[in-house]
Amino acid sequence: MKVISTTAEMREVTRALRRQGKTIAFVPTMGFLHEGHASLLRIARKRGDVLVLSIFVNPSQFGPNEDLDRYPRNLEGDLAIARRENVDLVFTPVPKEIYGPGYQTWIDVTEVSKHLCGASRPGHFRGVATVVAKLLNIVHADVAVFGEKDFQQLAVIRRMVEDLNMDTEIVGGALVREADGLAMSSRNVNLTPDHRRRALVLKRALDRAEDLAAAGERRVPVLLEAAREVLAAEHEGAVDYAEIRDAATLETIETLSGPAVFALAVRFGGTRLIDNTVLLNGGARVRGEKTRAPIAEATVTP
Amino acid sequence: MKVISTTAEMREVTRALRRQGKTIAFVPTMGFLHEGHASLLRIARKRGDVLVLSIFVNPSQFGPNEDLDRYPRNLEGDLAIARRENVDLVFTPVPKEIYGPGYQTWIDVTEVSKHLCGASRPGHFRGVATVVAKLLNIVHADVAVFGEKDFQQLAVIRRMVEDLNMDTEIVGGALVREADGLAMSSRNVNLTPDHRRRALVLKRALDRAEDLAAAGERRVPVLLEAAREVLAAEHEGAVDYAEIRDAATLETIETLSGPAVFALAVRFGGTRLIDNTVLLNGGARVRGEKTRAPIAEATVTP
Repeated sequence: MKVISTTAEMREVTRALRRQGKTIAFVPTMGFLHEGHASLLRIARKRGDVLVLSIFVNPSQFGPNEDLDRYPRNLEGDLAIARRENVDLVFTPVPKEIYGPGYQTWIDVTEVSKHLCGASRPGHFRGVATVVAKLLNIVHADVAVFGEKDFQQLAVIRRMVEDLNMDTEIVGGALVREADGLAMSSRNVNLTPDHRRRALVLKRALDRAEDLAAAGERRVPVLLEAAREVLAAEHEGAVDYAEIRDAATLETIETLSGPAVFALAVRFGGTRLIDNTVLLNGGARVRGEKTRAPIAEATVTP
Repeated sequence: MKVISTTAEMREVTRALRRQGKTIAFVPTMGFLHEGHASLLRIARKRGDVLVLSIFVNPSQFGPNEDLDRYPRNLEGDLAIARRENVDLVFTPVPKEIYGPGYQTWIDVTEVSKHLCGASRPGHFRGVATVVAKLLNIVHADVAVFGEKDFQQLAVIRRMVEDLNMDTEIVGGALVREADGLAMSSRNVNLTPDHRRRALVLKRALDRAEDLAAAGERRVPVLLEAAREVLAAEHEGAVDYAEIRDAATLETIETLSGPAVFALAVRFGGTRLIDNTVLLNGGARVRGEKTRAPIAEATVTP
């Protein structure tokens, strides 16, 4: 496994690999890797001759009052996981390798970015889209794997890659949960023990909506009201949003008819957690089936 | 020579060529080709195994009150020139091949786009940057050649390609003039005979500044005042801008010290003409030297 920290070297190495006819599979991350990232690496490992991991806490996707400074980091731990997952190349640029002098180009995916996290975090998806486009180009990615936990991010990236005719296949990997149901996130480490316990309310709210949908409820306001009642029981969690939307466009819907995402963002102290589930994704699902996802095969959301 | 009208086929054909180890040189145009375009094709012909020309009048770079509807077109004439210049592939998409259903991704190069044409044509460079990124991806361009007549466009594209780490070398081709000095432009055909004659004032204004700079004048306000006097003599030409700026950043300057561009935009009736010259580009230039450019070798502006 080789660790590369400059953009110039990574471009050169991957360009040469492409010329040799190798396919390159890529997992971009912000580091502090957990089992969710490992599952993405395993998906990617099967999709390319060469597996590239990037670790870059991207400043441009954090707002001025967000948690860039306290975003957790652990390079040694990350490299150990990378080795275990048979990563070939690790890209660890410092910010000035990505945003050099005079940097001024930004990519906006205007509609899919508008709502949900885009509404609470202005500029967030502009930063995400831009850095992902750059990273895909730098590593010459044939395939790139992103977690479905960041559901809207995945929708933004799919749309960008299609719209800009980029030559990378985008693959989604299923959300991975802790044994007790909390969605795995690098940010979980910032929760107090009390908030960690209370944070299980996100999964309970998703389960409530899934149960009702499985029982035949199709009215979105009814599903949301039931889920919001569950959330309201934890007075310490400040709900940023709790929305059920079309799974592809993220537009509002009134009735479940095709695949819809139920997406949540809740703050505990200074830590903002997100979670989601897809309702009516190929038929009703037995509650709890996704509590601990198996090592996910690639799933392609519409 | 093969003419391809769908994005899917062009991507597939050029992807296959790349895999065979061929290098692809590309000249994107809006059609109605003239000797300026031909000179770019000759530069590109020497730079790649495969020469691709695109002809696409890009709606997203025209404002609501601009000349999209009366932009001149002549596909048969264009194909004749393409054949003469040994083009291998011509890409002639209709707008819905480029902007499909739900299209929503836009690229902004924020600083270089701000002034000059960007100030008179809001959104213009957003449309240019976006369509160029798409075309470079669709044709898998190793090299792309753009005319220096659209000086700011070239600066925007260079910046975008560098910022987004795109794997295409951007090459500038020298501006080509008619025998009497008018910069070649597809839009010249829209000029009335009277305006066509009066339009020579652009070149006279550039010459005036060049003469003064060659004689040692370094004060930008003095150079501009002299050039604006020349422009003012043609009362029918409405000056959009006449500016001398740093050739790389397009920022304002007060004194000539390194390469600077003198850029002009003047309207005659409904037709807006642009022209430019680089002052202090490697030493003083003899007046008129560029009146009729030779078939230009690649020149790389900083």
